[in-house]
Amino acid sequence: MERPSFSQRRRPAILTAIAVAFLGAPTGVIAQAPKDVKTPDKPLVLKAQGSFFVGGDKVEQTAGELGDLGAGGHITINQMYVHYMVPQRGDRNVPVVMVHGATLTGKSWETTPDGRMGWDEYFVRKGHPVYVPDQVGRGRSGFNQAVVNDVRAGSKPATELPVWLRFSDEGVWPNFRLGATAGQPFADSQFPVAAVDELSKQSVPDMFRGTTSISTIKALSELATQLNGAVVMGHSQSGVFPLQAALLNPKAMKGLVLVEPGSCPATYTAEEIKALATVPLLVAFGDHRDNPTGLPSLPTWQARFEMCQALIGRIKSAGGQADMLAPPDLGIRGNSHMIMQDKNNLQIADLILKWIDADARKRSGAAK
Amino acid sequence: MERPSFSQRRRPAILTAIAVAFLGAPTGVIAQAPKDVKTPDKPLVLKAQGSFFVGGDKVEQTAGELGDLGAGGHITINQMYVHYMVPQRGDRNVPVVMVHGATLTGKSWETTPDGRMGWDEYFVRKGHPVYVPDQVGRGRSGFNQAVVNDVRAGSKPATELPVWLRFSDEGVWPNFRLGATAGQPFADSQFPVAAVDELSKQSVPDMFRGTTSISTIKALSELATQLNGAVVMGHSQSGVFPLQAALLNPKAMKGLVLVEPGSCPATYTAEEIKALATVPLLVAFGDHRDNPTGLPSLPTWQARFEMCQALIGRIKSAGGQADMLAPPDLGIRGNSHMIMQDKNNLQIADLILKWIDADARKRSGAAK
Repeated sequence: MERPSFSQRRRPAILTAIAVAFLGAPTGVIAQAPKDVKTPDKPLVLKAQGSFFVGGDKVEQTAGELGDLGAGGHITINQMYVHYMVPQRGDRNVPVVMVHGATLTGKSWETTPDGRMGWDEYFVRKGHPVYVPDQVGRGRSGFNQAVVNDVRAGSKPATELPVWLRFSDEGVWPNFRLGATAGQPFADSQFPVAAVDELSKQSVPDMFRGTTSISTIKALSELATQLNGAVVMGHSQSGVFPLQAALLNPKAMKGLVLVEPGSCPATYTAEEIKALATVPLLVAFGDHRDNPTGLPSLPTWQARFEMCQALIGRIKSAGGQADMLAPPDLGIRGNSHMIMQDKNNLQIADLILKWIDADARKRSGAAK
Repeated sequence: MERPSFSQRRRPAILTAIAVAFLGAPTGVIAQAPKDVKTPDKPLVLKAQGSFFVGGDKVEQTAGELGDLGAGGHITINQMYVHYMVPQRGDRNVPVVMVHGATLTGKSWETTPDGRMGWDEYFVRKGHPVYVPDQVGRGRSGFNQAVVNDVRAGSKPATELPVWLRFSDEGVWPNFRLGATAGQPFADSQFPVAAVDELSKQSVPDMFRGTTSISTIKALSELATQLNGAVVMGHSQSGVFPLQAALLNPKAMKGLVLVEPGSCPATYTAEEIKALATVPLLVAFGDHRDNPTGLPSLPTWQARFEMCQALIGRIKSAGGQADMLAPPDLGIRGNSHMIMQDKNNLQIADLILKWIDADARKRSGAAK
């Protein structure tokens, strides 16, 4: 990817402000003050809220692997942190699990970069219990540090270290489809680009090519089972997770929502398609899908869209219910990859909620 | 620290169950199901809830440092994630910021290991807006991954890797004062020891000897300033953070609460003590402080208690208000280092709230 030039000629003031914020390196970023976070008009009434963990494996590690402060012993790895809110009225509605994408955490679904209500709260206000995990290996789920301490001590080669991925701010613009080039949003962009620095702060290192996804998928299946059924919603990297979790226990799934999935596998067997056809599926993609991502080693968003159209076709052919939600087809333009944070995020949420309440709820009676 | 022998002779059934859960390695840990999480009797009514970041620095990194998926560019590091809840009634009460300790995240203050209400919700129910950060370098605040990718690529020596600390489950028992030896709780222990595996899941790797604390302290001072004044509560490793943050801007602090602090520095100058004496200070320690920690390189908890008594003495001599809360002195026995998760956690919270509402609130008028 070519580095952007940040020419500011003939740009409106807002874009100049964005570029200045964007180039303000390596000094402090202007913080989003609590005063910038909007207060809703009506109170949020919760029957319950809190957090817990799903899954986890006990392993024994040496003193060195634990960082050499004490003796060796056991720790837990592969657990998945889950934050939840249950609405006072509506806790009999189907729960929705929201899983974040690459280099991100559950924060994706919370307050937007410009301080508006996130989907986590909005879905609760619409009557659904909401469960927001951090993927295994990230955020409050933690990760297995042993190999880093081993390499530091010289007992393992450096090549065994995980590759920890971050997307650069410059790379996010085309890849997340805020604009074709960093600092230059699409004219119709729905992303709150003036607050793009707040999106940058959401990024955490991601063992992108690691095995943590397997633990996350297993934990998502366990969570849906423990909830006596749930709609599982993935995003981007985790877009495929609801499908994979459904294959572990289709009966626990009330619906699968794939928001801008990074993949819709073409490799599912006929038997797997048959299992997936027992669960309603919704796939949602935003606009500007033909924008070059700047990451030639990965499929374009349009290619991903077409992969998902193909999967929808296979599931429907097997008698299942599978739908594509493409806001541009409804005349809603400019949505980005971070559609849950876009300026019209609640409009998009309403479309998904309409689908859940019409379709996924049909299954609610079975396991309750 | 000697490895425990786990002899099960003459042990009650509950202890055997704990030891079995404890030794269940390296297979799956029995998960805490959502059904084990208690639902409060009354709804929680929030004026607002959500999350935001404080601070952050933009840095430029190479393609390799970013994990080699795209080109090099800028990312943000040193930002601090903050989750918050504001009660519907009582948002004019002084906000309370709760910062977690070593190898932990903001989860410390949420639902307890055995599924009871955490201090975050309880303080909100008692009328205080509550702000729960993840320390910089941990949880949803992320960390700087560049050096790990550099070492993997061979461009930096392995000795530049951070030491990432975890406490072993065995080591937590004496150090967090659940019992003298792993699997053998004190007879009067207030910690929910049957759920100790859930405490294990809260642990994340900690750059214990890194510089992330400096960014956290700076962000805490900024947060208190942005809130127009707050009580800042630290725990264990972060017990000293409220003191350090107060020195950056004493006027932003409505009160400092040090819960089981790892340190009360004896090195403050007379000028620093004078500044600290302008802010009410409460230090709280649990029971069994003379239990050997199993970490001879660190002070014992009794030594830390005495360091804090000395600091309280210096602040009082300078005309300040500083108090020690030692529940054993009030006849409340068996509290652990994880006092906010102990079975009597709300009883301890009430003692701290009484102090805040009587003392820290006096300052609320000034900055509002």
